[in-house]
Amino acid sequence: MSNTFGSKYKVTTYGESHGVAIGGVIDGCPAGLAYDAEMMAHEMARRHEGARSTTRHEADTVEILSGIHEGYTLGTPIAFKIANNDARSDDYDTLKELYRPGHADYTYEARYGRRDHRGGGRASGRETAARVAAGAIAKMVLADKGIRVHAAIAESISTPSDDSSGGVITCTIEGVKAGIGDPVFNKLNAHLAAGMMSIPSAIGFEMGAGFAAARMKGSQYRDKWRGDGTMATESNHCGGIQGGISNGMPIEFRVAFHPVVTIGQATECIDRQGQVRIWEPQGRHDSNHLPRTIVVVEAMAAMTIADYLV
Amino acid sequence: MSNTFGSKYKVTTYGESHGVAIGGVIDGCPAGLAYDAEMMAHEMARRHEGARSTTRHEADTVEILSGIHEGYTLGTPIAFKIANNDARSDDYDTLKELYRPGHADYTYEARYGRRDHRGGGRASGRETAARVAAGAIAKMVLADKGIRVHAAIAESISTPSDDSSGGVITCTIEGVKAGIGDPVFNKLNAHLAAGMMSIPSAIGFEMGAGFAAARMKGSQYRDKWRGDGTMATESNHCGGIQGGISNGMPIEFRVAFHPVVTIGQATECIDRQGQVRIWEPQGRHDSNHLPRTIVVVEAMAAMTIADYLV
Amino acid sequence: MSNTFGSKYKVTTYGESHGVAIGGVIDGCPAGLAYDAEMMAHEMARRHEGARSTTRHEADTVEILSGIHEGYTLGTPIAFKIANNDARSDDYDTLKELYRPGHADYTYEARYGRRDHRGGGRASGRETAARVAAGAIAKMVLADKGIRVHAAIAESISTPSDDSSGGVITCTIEGVKAGIGDPVFNKLNAHLAAGMMSIPSAIGFEMGAGFAAARMKGSQYRDKWRGDGTMATESNHCGGIQGGISNGMPIEFRVAFHPVVTIGQATECIDRQGQVRIWEPQGRHDSNHLPRTIVVVEAMAAMTIADYLV
Amino acid sequence: MSNTFGSKYKVTTYGESHGVAIGGVIDGCPAGLAYDAEMMAHEMARRHEGARSTTRHEADTVEILSGIHEGYTLGTPIAFKIANNDARSDDYDTLKELYRPGHADYTYEARYGRRDHRGGGRASGRETAARVAAGAIAKMVLADKGIRVHAAIAESISTPSDDSSGGVITCTIEGVKAGIGDPVFNKLNAHLAAGMMSIPSAIGFEMGAGFAAARMKGSQYRDKWRGDGTMATESNHCGGIQGGISNGMPIEFRVAFHPVVTIGQATECIDRQGQVRIWEPQGRHDSNHLPRTIVVVEAMAAMTIADYLV
Repeated sequence: MSNTFGSKYKVTTYGESHGVAIGGVIDGCPAGLAYDAEMMAHEMARRHEGARSTTRHEADTVEILSGIHEGYTLGTPIAFKIANNDARSDDYDTLKELYRPGHADYTYEARYGRRDHRGGGRASGRETAARVAAGAIAKMVLADKGIRVHAAIAESISTPSDDSSGGVITCTIEGVKAGIGDPVFNKLNAHLAAGMMSIPSAIGFEMGAGFAAARMKGSQYRDKWRGDGTMATESNHCGGIQGGISNGMPIEFRVAFHPVVTIGQATECIDRQGQVRIWEPQGRHDSNHLPRTIVVVEAMAAMTIADYLV
Repeated sequence: MSNTFGSKYKVTTYGESHGVAIGGVIDGCPAGLAYDAEMMAHEMARRHEGARSTTRHEADTVEILSGIHEGYTLGTPIAFKIANNDARSDDYDTLKELYRPGHADYTYEARYGRRDHRGGGRASGRETAARVAAGAIAKMVLADKGIRVHAAIAESISTPSDDSSGGVITCTIEGVKAGIGDPVFNKLNAHLAAGMMSIPSAIGFEMGAGFAAARMKGSQYRDKWRGDGTMATESNHCGGIQGGISNGMPIEFRVAFHPVVTIGQATECIDRQGQVRIWEPQGRHDSNHLPRTIVVVEAMAAMTIADYLV
Repeated sequence: MSNTFGSKYKVTTYGESHGVAIGGVIDGCPAGLAYDAEMMAHEMARRHEGARSTTRHEADTVEILSGIHEGYTLGTPIAFKIANNDARSDDYDTLKELYRPGHADYTYEARYGRRDHRGGGRASGRETAARVAAGAIAKMVLADKGIRVHAAIAESISTPSDDSSGGVITCTIEGVKAGIGDPVFNKLNAHLAAGMMSIPSAIGFEMGAGFAAARMKGSQYRDKWRGDGTMATESNHCGGIQGGISNGMPIEFRVAFHPVVTIGQATECIDRQGQVRIWEPQGRHDSNHLPRTIVVVEAMAAMTIADYLV
Repeated sequence: MSNTFGSKYKVTTYGESHGVAIGGVIDGCPAGLAYDAEMMAHEMARRHEGARSTTRHEADTVEILSGIHEGYTLGTPIAFKIANNDARSDDYDTLKELYRPGHADYTYEARYGRRDHRGGGRASGRETAARVAAGAIAKMVLADKGIRVHAAIAESISTPSDDSSGGVITCTIEGVKAGIGDPVFNKLNAHLAAGMMSIPSAIGFEMGAGFAAARMKGSQYRDKWRGDGTMATESNHCGGIQGGISNGMPIEFRVAFHPVVTIGQATECIDRQGQVRIWEPQGRHDSNHLPRTIVVVEAMAAMTIADYLV
């Protein structure tokens, strides 16, 4: 019920797209971890370069405000800030009274009674920059334990010339030992699902064989033990988690994303009276956000796993 | 990181399949709600009757221990207990040293260093009885606000004679007003995903158009406003949630379940040394658990929504 | 905001004084801990025997419902239940419409709009039986780590013949290593204070030198290092905690309790219109609850420390 | 177990005394509240001016980074930052290897394995500036509901010329309606105690009559109803809370603070081997921090009450 993810490696983010800054506070990062500023910059660049077609050029430098001293984490909260440099808010004035289709304009007003309409405010894809920064530090925690997170685009229709597209991202987490997770409600797969479905535009999640498993027979689905003295299995239909707890195999899942909902053409919005008004989008927008979302998927995966290991 | 679901309508469950009892404590249920014992019995029966082929006959009577006085909730914790009446634990003695394929036997031992091996212990499907009881009370909370939850089997292969099957359950929540949910991490869809993926055998989750949305163009996907003075849309590809917040349309999602992993035939397990051992299952088991899972999906949906409304 | 204490060793209690039962669920107790039933019975007896003058004789047998298998904890929730055997609810009928002075009758109705008026309902001192049971298991966790909790009555006026009294309980926790606690808001002393002030009738709390420290000079107050190669100090005015974190010295604090507010004589209550009504108490009540509260103080101390160590 | 206070009006603070900045994120502040920048500056000045003798002059301007748009709160996280302008870290170099008496130097290293030794790092009294900022916004929330918080020095010995002193601060919260609080563990008085005991140097807490109540008879202690048709009482020994829930009377409590532990004279510290080393403090320090702590007490009180009302 809040802007916090995790219960031990806790990440709280803040910021509206066109406010002073976005950022976050990481509470629960272990003390004594070497902070890798280069890796942080690299991760931020991965998110940024995924999105070449956006006109707005963000520096996206992560300024660390606390929690790191002489290159190492102190165990105290790591606060960071990413300035919003290049915000031409006047582009958005016409949106003040309009609800776009597919956007959260109407739902935010229903929830809060008001919104920062400029560039989507808190609902902007820009908030994922804070996720990537927090995820980069989670990856440093995991790397220290021999855990690697890797995502890639699994499928994506080629974007139509007149319109936008979405797709599916696959993610693998290697190096997680057996025994991570909790039974019943707080299953590791449940937390991964929550993390992934919290990413803007996420609309589906599946572990291992996923929806295809619903059409298998039990004898096909259940992963056969190798029986070679390891606890490994021959296949990995379950995606590395059983009863909510990791089994030592790679953790594998896929996330479906719906297409970008801003399209560079006249759009039927409604006003506060529910009446149709035509809006002509200004500027340019990504027509497919998957390239910049890869690193966001990795960030949420890293934060989810780190939450069990700190 | 615990056996609790929810942060305001908080449900904590307990119990192993063959222990004294299973049950739970609901903390956060509003005071003054009429307790409908008949509806509770009906919900428990829906779960039970979905599973005709299981030999074990459970009475599954929900005994209320606290929190209800003269037929109304007090606002204090509602504790309930479901006795484990008919537990023939000796059926399971051969399993004490074995890890079955597809089960959580190995992962529980990796997590806790020990387990109650009888009937799956805490990882048994029996724990869902506590979910249904807690969900029944959540439904009473929701009914009071005009909200109805309805699930059904969307697809299921006909179960092969030699084996088991899974399937897909669809769920619709009607009557949720616009404005329910939180942005960024605690999106309503993220919580629904976590709730659903926490159900035993769940392996996939999708909102609205789900994975199919990943193959749509933006102009197809985004739901067109009706423009008739209501805030309704013509289609509901997003499943009733935008930016993590309900938009007033029905909330629609689907959950994929992998097939039952216990099959009535000789099965290759491993022992603690990772060596193959053959296990002959005793008794009968469900070969498809979807009929008994419908009410579990509804229960988790009801608990998720109630958490935002109490 | 709930009936839960702790964030890792989490104890949720339930139950009204004259309902079916009181009890609790402990979530977060480590697996593999030997359960000492005799010690549990002994702790429950300490609470019971402290209160000889109460006519109501409670068996106060703690029934374990889950989480313990073959004498050891499973790591899953430990649910327990204490039956309310001897409840003569009709004694309380006259109280249904009255608010007694010093009791929570009025505040419960203001909070919830209703209450179980029988014997104080959830606000009864009887709820401390669940604390003692949960505390006994916390003590098993601590004993395993060489930590002992010991409370005693520090001061108590001799109870006047016509009336009731309170007093002060002192508590010492030995064996806590340096480094337990969190800075800023979640200081160990802050959690101890919250735990102690949550006990019925608690009205004051002080660490180490406490209120007397407010009248010392800094040079008197600050504990001098022994300087003998240990990290120990000569005095312990701070009560074993600095900056919210244990320093390895014994943790020492005191809790003040106001006198029992039920007195065996005609009492001015008010009704729902705020008008005075005279109530003649039935039966007998403790005139000083400190003897039965000693073990409650220990229980809350044990739960607080266990929360940092599991 | 974290740097967060509250569960609905959640304040997470960050920052070391001599790092880039201190600050916090408030999550849960209602939308649509007018932000009063002047009042914020006034509160920060109250904390600052309480401490005239400190040489270090901090601007203590609160920079709002998010959550406020066009003068009103958005309902999204309010992040704020207070720059650390005037930090002469080299003053502290001699402290790098020393543990001062009465300070958290040793306990922080025991907890985290390292610390930012400059000016106390996270354990510095400087962190209270973030509390005051978060408390100022909590006061805006409360003012909107007619609730006022007022603290004052109740007793303080006149500071000896050679040394330092502490004292007692009293606090009254007026305008809280009956019915605020939770029973059993999360009593309003328990949360107030936790909030107060989390303030640097706090060493005792008492509600209403407090420790003096331990020496009263029940007939003296229990507050007599006025019986005039209101629900008010003649005295307020309980401090406005019964059974953990407000009763509509003013909420009254007192907090004891031990004397300042830094004294302007040669001090016996120990090194990491536990051997005595003499340290000569540089610069000037407050010899009594109570004047600057008044507003901190109010801030924590406001945050505690706001947590129940948002």
